[in-house]
Amino acid sequence: MQKQVYFFGEGKAEGSREMKNLLGGKGANLAEMTNLGLPVPPGFTISTEVCTYFYQNNKNYPPEFEKAVLTAIGKMETVLGAKFADKDDPLLLSIRSGARVSMPGMMDTILNLGLNDETVLGLSKKVDERFAQDSYRRFIQMYSDVVLEVAPHHFETLLEQTRRRENVAADSELSASTLKNLVGEFKKIVLLETGKPFPSDPMVQLWGAISAVFGSWNSARAISYRRIHKIPEDWGTAVNVQAMVFGNMGEDCATGVAFTRDPSTGDKKFFGEFLTNAQGEDVVAGIRTPLPINKESSNGSNLPTLQEKMPSPYGELVKTYQILEKHYRDMQDIEFTVQKGKLFMLQTRTGKRTASAAVRIAVDMVKEGLIKPEEAVLRVTPAQVEQLLHPRLDPRHVKQVIAKGLPASPGAASGEVIFSSEEAEELRRNNRKVILVRHETSPEDIGGMDASQGILTALGGMTSHAAVVARGMGKPCVAGCGVISIDYKNQQFKVGDQLVKKGELLTLDGGTGEVILGHVPTINSQLDEHFREFMKWVDQFRVLKVRANAETPNDVKVARGFGAEGVGLCRTEHMFFEESRITAVREMILSDSRKQRESALSKIFPMQKEDFKAIFREMKDYPVTIRLLDPPLHEFLPKTESEMTSLARLLNTSKESIQAKVRSLHEFNPMLGHRGCRLGVSFPEIYAMQVRAIMEAACELVKKEEFQIEPEIMIPFVGAMEEYRLLKSDILKVCEKVLTEQNINVSFSVGTMIEIPRAALIAGKLAQEASFFSFGTNDLTQMTLGLSRDDSGSFLPKYVEKGIYSVDPFVSLDQEGVGELISLACERAKLSNSNIKIGICGEHGGDTSTIEFCNRLGFNYVSCSPFRVPVARLAAAQATLKSK
Amino acid sequence: MQKQVYFFGEGKAEGSREMKNLLGGKGANLAEMTNLGLPVPPGFTISTEVCTYFYQNNKNYPPEFEKAVLTAIGKMETVLGAKFADKDDPLLLSIRSGARVSMPGMMDTILNLGLNDETVLGLSKKVDERFAQDSYRRFIQMYSDVVLEVAPHHFETLLEQTRRRENVAADSELSASTLKNLVGEFKKIVLLETGKPFPSDPMVQLWGAISAVFGSWNSARAISYRRIHKIPEDWGTAVNVQAMVFGNMGEDCATGVAFTRDPSTGDKKFFGEFLTNAQGEDVVAGIRTPLPINKESSNGSNLPTLQEKMPSPYGELVKTYQILEKHYRDMQDIEFTVQKGKLFMLQTRTGKRTASAAVRIAVDMVKEGLIKPEEAVLRVTPAQVEQLLHPRLDPRHVKQVIAKGLPASPGAASGEVIFSSEEAEELRRNNRKVILVRHETSPEDIGGMDASQGILTALGGMTSHAAVVARGMGKPCVAGCGVISIDYKNQQFKVGDQLVKKGELLTLDGGTGEVILGHVPTINSQLDEHFREFMKWVDQFRVLKVRANAETPNDVKVARGFGAEGVGLCRTEHMFFEESRITAVREMILSDSRKQRESALSKIFPMQKEDFKAIFREMKDYPVTIRLLDPPLHEFLPKTESEMTSLARLLNTSKESIQAKVRSLHEFNPMLGHRGCRLGVSFPEIYAMQVRAIMEAACELVKKEEFQIEPEIMIPFVGAMEEYRLLKSDILKVCEKVLTEQNINVSFSVGTMIEIPRAALIAGKLAQEASFFSFGTNDLTQMTLGLSRDDSGSFLPKYVEKGIYSVDPFVSLDQEGVGELISLACERAKLSNSNIKIGICGEHGGDTSTIEFCNRLGFNYVSCSPFRVPVARLAAAQATLKSK
Repeated sequence: MQKQVYFFGEGKAEGSREMKNLLGGKGANLAEMTNLGLPVPPGFTISTEVCTYFYQNNKNYPPEFEKAVLTAIGKMETVLGAKFADKDDPLLLSIRSGARVSMPGMMDTILNLGLNDETVLGLSKKVDERFAQDSYRRFIQMYSDVVLEVAPHHFETLLEQTRRRENVAADSELSASTLKNLVGEFKKIVLLETGKPFPSDPMVQLWGAISAVFGSWNSARAISYRRIHKIPEDWGTAVNVQAMVFGNMGEDCATGVAFTRDPSTGDKKFFGEFLTNAQGEDVVAGIRTPLPINKESSNGSNLPTLQEKMPSPYGELVKTYQILEKHYRDMQDIEFTVQKGKLFMLQTRTGKRTASAAVRIAVDMVKEGLIKPEEAVLRVTPAQVEQLLHPRLDPRHVKQVIAKGLPASPGAASGEVIFSSEEAEELRRNNRKVILVRHETSPEDIGGMDASQGILTALGGMTSHAAVVARGMGKPCVAGCGVISIDYKNQQFKVGDQLVKKGELLTLDGGTGEVILGHVPTINSQLDEHFREFMKWVDQFRVLKVRANAETPNDVKVARGFGAEGVGLCRTEHMFFEESRITAVREMILSDSRKQRESALSKIFPMQKEDFKAIFREMKDYPVTIRLLDPPLHEFLPKTESEMTSLARLLNTSKESIQAKVRSLHEFNPMLGHRGCRLGVSFPEIYAMQVRAIMEAACELVKKEEFQIEPEIMIPFVGAMEEYRLLKSDILKVCEKVLTEQNINVSFSVGTMIEIPRAALIAGKLAQEASFFSFGTNDLTQMTLGLSRDDSGSFLPKYVEKGIYSVDPFVSLDQEGVGELISLACERAKLSNSNIKIGICGEHGGDTSTIEFCNRLGFNYVSCSPFRVPVARLAAAQATLKSK
Repeated sequence: MQKQVYFFGEGKAEGSREMKNLLGGKGANLAEMTNLGLPVPPGFTISTEVCTYFYQNNKNYPPEFEKAVLTAIGKMETVLGAKFADKDDPLLLSIRSGARVSMPGMMDTILNLGLNDETVLGLSKKVDERFAQDSYRRFIQMYSDVVLEVAPHHFETLLEQTRRRENVAADSELSASTLKNLVGEFKKIVLLETGKPFPSDPMVQLWGAISAVFGSWNSARAISYRRIHKIPEDWGTAVNVQAMVFGNMGEDCATGVAFTRDPSTGDKKFFGEFLTNAQGEDVVAGIRTPLPINKESSNGSNLPTLQEKMPSPYGELVKTYQILEKHYRDMQDIEFTVQKGKLFMLQTRTGKRTASAAVRIAVDMVKEGLIKPEEAVLRVTPAQVEQLLHPRLDPRHVKQVIAKGLPASPGAASGEVIFSSEEAEELRRNNRKVILVRHETSPEDIGGMDASQGILTALGGMTSHAAVVARGMGKPCVAGCGVISIDYKNQQFKVGDQLVKKGELLTLDGGTGEVILGHVPTINSQLDEHFREFMKWVDQFRVLKVRANAETPNDVKVARGFGAEGVGLCRTEHMFFEESRITAVREMILSDSRKQRESALSKIFPMQKEDFKAIFREMKDYPVTIRLLDPPLHEFLPKTESEMTSLARLLNTSKESIQAKVRSLHEFNPMLGHRGCRLGVSFPEIYAMQVRAIMEAACELVKKEEFQIEPEIMIPFVGAMEEYRLLKSDILKVCEKVLTEQNINVSFSVGTMIEIPRAALIAGKLAQEASFFSFGTNDLTQMTLGLSRDDSGSFLPKYVEKGIYSVDPFVSLDQEGVGELISLACERAKLSNSNIKIGICGEHGGDTSTIEFCNRLGFNYVSCSPFRVPVARLAAAQATLKSK
């Protein structure tokens, strides 16, 4: 073990900000500020290694530790001229925990340590009796709660009774003698509850506090927080022991917090609040309203400011914040206390900020020469960019949250509740805004979803149909909201006793999963010049390409607008559901012979070809990967009796024959059924039609519109080498035929999705024959984890809560399991084909940690829904920068 | 390249039986027989390397090849004193193909090559004109078909017309002049069909025949056969060119086939058939009935025998067969020809035999000192043992096959057609024999299946519910018989136009998948003393343990009787379906609180405990692995309205609440849903009850019946480390509590199934905490291949047919994919826990090639259905012997 105790004071500290692992965040910054010559009350930090030793040695301290603590206190006494436990001029201490990362569940703060019946008299003499007794009762109250584990309500009840008896509104109005009485009563409570008197020896108090900080590292809450956030147990916590300074010694005292720039807009202005004659906890308690530190912070009000009331310490504070921001090269969140006109700094740390402030600050700081563009890129999180892209609820508005589901697609929207897609489409024609509420959605609801402002489903997870489609459309969606019970018949839903009927106004927050009764106004996203500037830098540092999953010309256009560099996944079947086509698709499925099927396919062919042309045009000069038909055929068939009847009429057949087909196509586990390229093997004519449509579209564009194009034809759901070989050879035959007919040469490539575990295992072989791989991580996750995304809602949230999976594996790639399989596949593939192009097109393609993973593995691109493209661009840039 | 042409003749051959790869099976044995001094007509074999060269060099022969052939013919001429293409004494040749393994689709035989209008006169002089012309027309007919690809019906039609015109019944009655005319007519057909005259130059004939043999290696049929059986293309075929001998030169000539022991019983007796004055093809044509070669072969008839008619060549033949059997140390299947009283050997090979003959011959040969026990063990195939265990159809009976499904569970049975399980149970009470016919079966059909002789389903694959349960019961089952269309309402099914009504007699052959109208008698299996002796040797050479998948005391008893060394998979949920328990199970599922669930579970508890006791008793001294509850809860709920109504009455609740529960538990992909240990995480009380039942059962037996027992508690469907840790800790708590209560120490172990790909990937971690792994290869296959076993029936057969999967991956483990994952898991597991016990309990546990795979990977045991235990024992022994 290195040093156990690190002193700071008198302009010199043994630690520094680099020593976060050893001293915790708070301790490292206290040392740093001391070294900067800033007015930090002296003190010392007990290192995290002592904590680790403590737990590894049956809760004993290392040898020499006690001596080191006493030595450090001696130094404080020398610096301050006061003495710990001294009757006349007692040194009082604050004790705070401080781990590497801020961690809920850990002990917070004990103030005024060192007071007892004797030292309180010294403090009385030095300041005044009321202040001394008030400090004493605060200390007993805090210490009893945190160290002695006496339930706080005992003290609070007594305080309240006292206030009532004395007929005062606030504790600060209680007299010195009343407070002295309270101290006596408080000590009685402690004796009664713990069976032992309150410790009067300051040294016993100190050791009790240190043990309590270490003990709180293993509190149940801290342990579960660590398990969920994967924080190693042996990191331990540090303990900060510091001389007390008082913001509550009188009207020339104050305490406050400030930000070096505006945390909500990013404006370059010093921004903060303070209270005179107060201790930090008073600000938190919220009984008194804090005042602005300066005009810039006053929001136009005429409230007195710190600048006005205490110009000299304010001037000090301004100098200090400028030093700190320049030194830390980032916006700082600082805590300060003014004691009798003198400024003390208690904390500095990087300040939290809103998404737009983050972008603004990063861009400004580059312009100010404070940071480099690559640092700016690392200063904004992908989640913040995500926030910027979607409207959000106006935070000033009160909201009545009636339920909470999964935050399945970000953004916020309000509208009338509606339960059917047809009605949604009808109401749109009348310019009405609706929220579609369904048990779940199916491909047939696409029109209705498109016509709605947002979607709420009772079933389904983060990658359910509703979630995936809504994300693709950039619409808010709350999915898997199991507490709502929908009654289609009566056109209403219930949450507990709350009944919501068709037509009532509902608001969804897709970013939080909140379902809110009534209309809440939203604030639109602002993609201002700062954002555009910022994204330019992002693209400079990015290696991974970012493509979009999109299949309608409009989606492709949106994606391109967000900077997508190609289409990574064009799901051809989405085109099959359109009203004008579905009948031909159904005719094809109901056919009994290849000839009949071909005839039905020939009706779909011209439409698919036009789709491809439109998509190619929108993505001019960028690659487009087209996946051949994937879902099982039964997905296209009608579900209700009446639909079957009308289809039967349309196709001149019997309802019974349609029902028979539906029955014969029924599958117990459609996810693992007759789908993907298995359809291509069973019905080669389907893929033949699609490939012809792709190639004719490409040829005609090259001929008539004279642009270059190289379609990437992707075979889905491949599991075996022979399967791929067979289908590739079928595809090549069609391509060659079209090229001959068109008498032109257009390059194209054929590749496969890797979405079945077996495909990952045989990737070495597949790569010999495939030009590209695209990891379909939705299916790969389902199969590798044995987890149906549509069914996991009943237990997966509990799994994540218990830390069995640290995150929902459909949101962020399960790197330990699925990632292992992907690594293995990449390794084997590159061994046998070093030129293979590798991408990811599952829903994970827009997830930050997944993108980092793909970057590490040397992927060529990630593909995500259009609205996540900027998010993915940033995540990709950060992945590259971080890996350096 | 080594030598291209290998001569044999005059007691000396350049080849030998070890050179099968180079000379093919037939060529190697001809060489071997020549070297043994047996009377083999001289000839030569063109090596398979020439074939390979031929294909690698654009169908050109290697240099020097022609010369080598001419030299070999020269040697034949020297040996025989006749000359190829000689007018007076022409040497005639037979040409046969011969690959390493016998392969359908390859060219068979050309006889009498070397005849033309001139040489036929020489043959006339040497023998007689009728014989010569008959040989000539036979030659033209064969050669035109095989080499010139003239459709055979042209010749057959003409022959038939001629017979009619001449008013004779057989070709042998046609006169010399008629035959001579026919020769002319045949040649005209060739000219007409091919545009070229029939080749008259014997050398041209020879080269045409050699090319035809090589060409047939790449015929469409041969290619597809090779693809399916994974025979490498570059093996190539050999060509055997041999001097003709004639069994049709007169009454002192004959041709025949014989076996050195009885191929159907294995009796040690020389057994065969012959025809006088005939060529091999006449035996095949089946116009004349062959005669027995001796009394032992006569089946009690008084037919003349070869022994009587030609005592001297018969004596030669007896000596020869004794030499061959002793030399080859196995029963031989031989072909011979007697030409004018002189015996010639044309072929010897290992004889095919029935299952019981295989056992008998193997055991006898050990006793005779001919082979060692380990060789005997390798002489019987696991499939033969399988056959021996089940009744089979009497082969003498004519059968009207109306449909063919999957051979899902071996054995054969007849009974009345019945469509419901309840009726099946009712009829059993009246001692009626029934065949249960269902779309599919579900756990509720278990009683009905047990009451039936056999099961026929229209849906489902080799590991469907019906298949798995039937195999467990040892009952025949034909599954996935898609051609039958069942009409429950009218109690009948249809195959094409054939209507089968309830009560009609039906026979199933579960070994072939045949569905037969009417009653076909069966022959029972005979596990005689030979079999028992044989199995003793099997166990001597076996390393892998063989356990059984079984859960009823009766199944466990049967398994033990078949030699199972423990239970590898006791599926506790199977016990839940029994009529006496299902109501309590349903009550548990319908409960809203943990307390209600616990109360329902307490009703099931005593029954489960008694089950475990009974199983432990049957498997005294052997390990029993008990899997905790696995299937999703909805499997236990009623399906029909009426069942729901009666359950509602029983449980004093409403039908609606039951329907609501059924709806809420519905899953889109139950295979990947809320099942296995996920239930244990959601409802810890279920596993707690089961573990308590296991441990109390064990403790009471140890106390009261004084035997040792060590239950293996298996957690199913584990996918994550934390999941396993959590459940293991729950289990340990219950176990410790029971042991404390019972005040006794009983060892137990906790392990997991590896059935989710992710579990295989994290096997290294899991092994740190698990005492054993059991690979659940059914689920592992489903997930690794993305293939639902219940739904794959619609395309998997086509996949196997096309060679995309070489075998049904639910029948034989997919070693390339699933096997890769298993290898990886074993490797990682053993690295972190060298003591871990590893087994397999999926349906593959009884499959030969899977067992070989498990043996190679060092598994501790395989576990299969009781009726496959002897099969697995043999496969395990063979795997060990083969690996040496």
